[in-house]
Amino acid sequence: MLQPVLPDVQLTPTLEDARAASIVLASAPTALKNAGLGAMANRLRENVDSILEANREDLVRGAAHGLTAGLLDRLALDGPRVAALADAVEQVALLTDPVGEVVRGSTMPNAIKLSQVRVPFGVIGVIYEARPNVTVDLAALALKSGNAVVLRGGSAAENTNRVLVELVQDAISSAGLPRHAVQTIDPLGRAGATALMQARGYVDVLIPRGSANLISTVVTEAKVPVIETGSGVVHIFLDESADSQWAIDIVHNSKVQRPSVCNALETLLVHRASAARLLPGVLGKLTEAGVTIHADARVRALYASAVPATDEDWATEYMSLDVSVAIVDSLDEAIAHIRRYSTGHTESIITNDLANAERFLNEVDSASVMVNASTRFTDGAEFGFGAEVGISTQKLHARGPMGLSELTSTKWIVRGSGQVRA
Amino acid sequence: MLQPVLPDVQLTPTLEDARAASIVLASAPTALKNAGLGAMANRLRENVDSILEANREDLVRGAAHGLTAGLLDRLALDGPRVAALADAVEQVALLTDPVGEVVRGSTMPNAIKLSQVRVPFGVIGVIYEARPNVTVDLAALALKSGNAVVLRGGSAAENTNRVLVELVQDAISSAGLPRHAVQTIDPLGRAGATALMQARGYVDVLIPRGSANLISTVVTEAKVPVIETGSGVVHIFLDESADSQWAIDIVHNSKVQRPSVCNALETLLVHRASAARLLPGVLGKLTEAGVTIHADARVRALYASAVPATDEDWATEYMSLDVSVAIVDSLDEAIAHIRRYSTGHTESIITNDLANAERFLNEVDSASVMVNASTRFTDGAEFGFGAEVGISTQKLHARGPMGLSELTSTKWIVRGSGQVRA
Repeated sequence: MLQPVLPDVQLTPTLEDARAASIVLASAPTALKNAGLGAMANRLRENVDSILEANREDLVRGAAHGLTAGLLDRLALDGPRVAALADAVEQVALLTDPVGEVVRGSTMPNAIKLSQVRVPFGVIGVIYEARPNVTVDLAALALKSGNAVVLRGGSAAENTNRVLVELVQDAISSAGLPRHAVQTIDPLGRAGATALMQARGYVDVLIPRGSANLISTVVTEAKVPVIETGSGVVHIFLDESADSQWAIDIVHNSKVQRPSVCNALETLLVHRASAARLLPGVLGKLTEAGVTIHADARVRALYASAVPATDEDWATEYMSLDVSVAIVDSLDEAIAHIRRYSTGHTESIITNDLANAERFLNEVDSASVMVNASTRFTDGAEFGFGAEVGISTQKLHARGPMGLSELTSTKWIVRGSGQVRA
Repeated sequence: MLQPVLPDVQLTPTLEDARAASIVLASAPTALKNAGLGAMANRLRENVDSILEANREDLVRGAAHGLTAGLLDRLALDGPRVAALADAVEQVALLTDPVGEVVRGSTMPNAIKLSQVRVPFGVIGVIYEARPNVTVDLAALALKSGNAVVLRGGSAAENTNRVLVELVQDAISSAGLPRHAVQTIDPLGRAGATALMQARGYVDVLIPRGSANLISTVVTEAKVPVIETGSGVVHIFLDESADSQWAIDIVHNSKVQRPSVCNALETLLVHRASAARLLPGVLGKLTEAGVTIHADARVRALYASAVPATDEDWATEYMSLDVSVAIVDSLDEAIAHIRRYSTGHTESIITNDLANAERFLNEVDSASVMVNASTRFTDGAEFGFGAEVGISTQKLHARGPMGLSELTSTKWIVRGSGQVRA
């Protein structure tokens, strides 16, 4: 840890308040934190009208500024969505508190007792875009894990986020927790985001949530530790021995069930020996669902309604009803293709060959590697974490879906009785 | 994971070789990696003369360039030091291989089998200064944990490191492992170090080892994930109830046993109610050992031979026979002082008061927090890790002494039988 570097005069008071709040939160009992979460859920339910009013302002301004339909949908709240946010906060209260968990421990030969325990990070920064649900989710997850959080939610959702943060602050303060445990720096604009990325000594970890562009900017500009969450150029490989019904169902589910999310399928690779057997059924079902098939020449020879894939397609995270499809000559070629184009999120092989399954699991270097399952299962809730902070595509600290434990660090507790080192 | 960014044309071939080697290493059996380590130890023992010859060149040049005695000592090898390096490599072979360890797992409600397993990071970069032992230690630790390593050891040790890396490469290659699993980029000079810090997509984690300046440069300039290792402004607090013999022994051991290392004591805080009882004995023993006492006015009133401490002293990691000493009015003031000046490495309280001990353990936010023990115990070997990569003073991924496990990431293995998400 370096000594704190003053990032930007405007931001410093916010960060000092966050640090002070984090010290109180670090030793707050679980029951108190849960009371704060309960109060948050109640305030959200009691103030639906003012939340929706602020949200309408953002939506009107967003439409006037030409935000895409997808962004406007992410931004939009309504009664059921606010209720779902409140429910999610109550779910977080039910989760096990990770703080204080003893990760490992031992008694040293000289009788010193050693234990490694989970502690909060301290101050978490979050930079995200046009998603008011992230404001509430991250406030709840940070509170439960004993961390103060500084939120930068972007100008598009500024009114909504301001109201949400005020409600959250009133709630936690009414429960006896420090108001500044949750703060927004949206009023500081872009300069605030930049200062947050550089606030060494004030921000213990920074989590970007949003587009590949936003994440890339944060990762390259940040001088504080970052957890990269992520973009997913997700692959499925249909091996020579793939069961045809599994291939049809898993590919359809991975691509179509929710195409706008990071664990959705983007590229399908097919072993040449199974292409003629599998592709008509697999691609036919995708076409029925309205998916555009971007394919190489060999695939197009088997499936005429596909459009030609460009080099760019293999590296594209469509997040839409599009998929790129290529035929490969071997498992090795499939693994090489994945190594070249994958963002390291999720890849799945459909096969009945045990040796090929094991090779794929061992040799594909992604956060989540699957055999005969839909890529949509890479998800905190599906993995049993109860809530999800995001999906990490980096290898440091956390990889794959992140739960509450991933919002903690550890410290070593050393209990002696006068021992010195020989 | 972003797509690879080409850092510097000179460095790219090295990093591509490292990546290729890392793929082979990731699935190399433990027995093969241990054979490589055995071969490394043998080559070092068989080539002491050529190692010492290269080292003499570095020492002569270093002396001509005016390197300090401390740096020259770190740089210097002799027969026993090379033998110790070889022994250390063999010790690494005896450690448990972390790769493949199942960290946690479960069966999902839909019968999918889920497990989180340890995997190597891939390519580790190390930037360090004038310490040939780091070359061999990190090569061995990276190999055992299945990682390729790219070393930048600094110009002062360039000849020594070149010979060491050649011997290591010959050894692992003779054992059937890829030669490029261990590489040095010293010939590229400073530009190579800069490019290594920016090699996103090629370097999975970068570890700086050395002075506070070097670490600070790497942390602020790097665009790849970094594990900050560390500088230690280490504190001991003598509470009102401290046992006087424990205070004398622990302070002496923490300061004097090896003053040049990061877990050595730098600042002693004393409760005003115990100052008159404890300071004469504690400081007297330090003075006998040749320690210069930099003290505030209240301490100097009790111990006349102390010199006045400046504001800068409280933030200084002396790494020498110097210590700063202050009297505080309470445990709260001690904790506040530590919060302000500590680098988050190690702090210890000497006390017989249970409540104060627990408060200190809970409220001091450092990698290692102790009661009634010497700060010198924050060490991988003392903690039972068998070997130490460094001591992390950041909160992300690893905190405190890092062993082999801290050189790994994890991945999620998902084994299904046709499941799709509802």
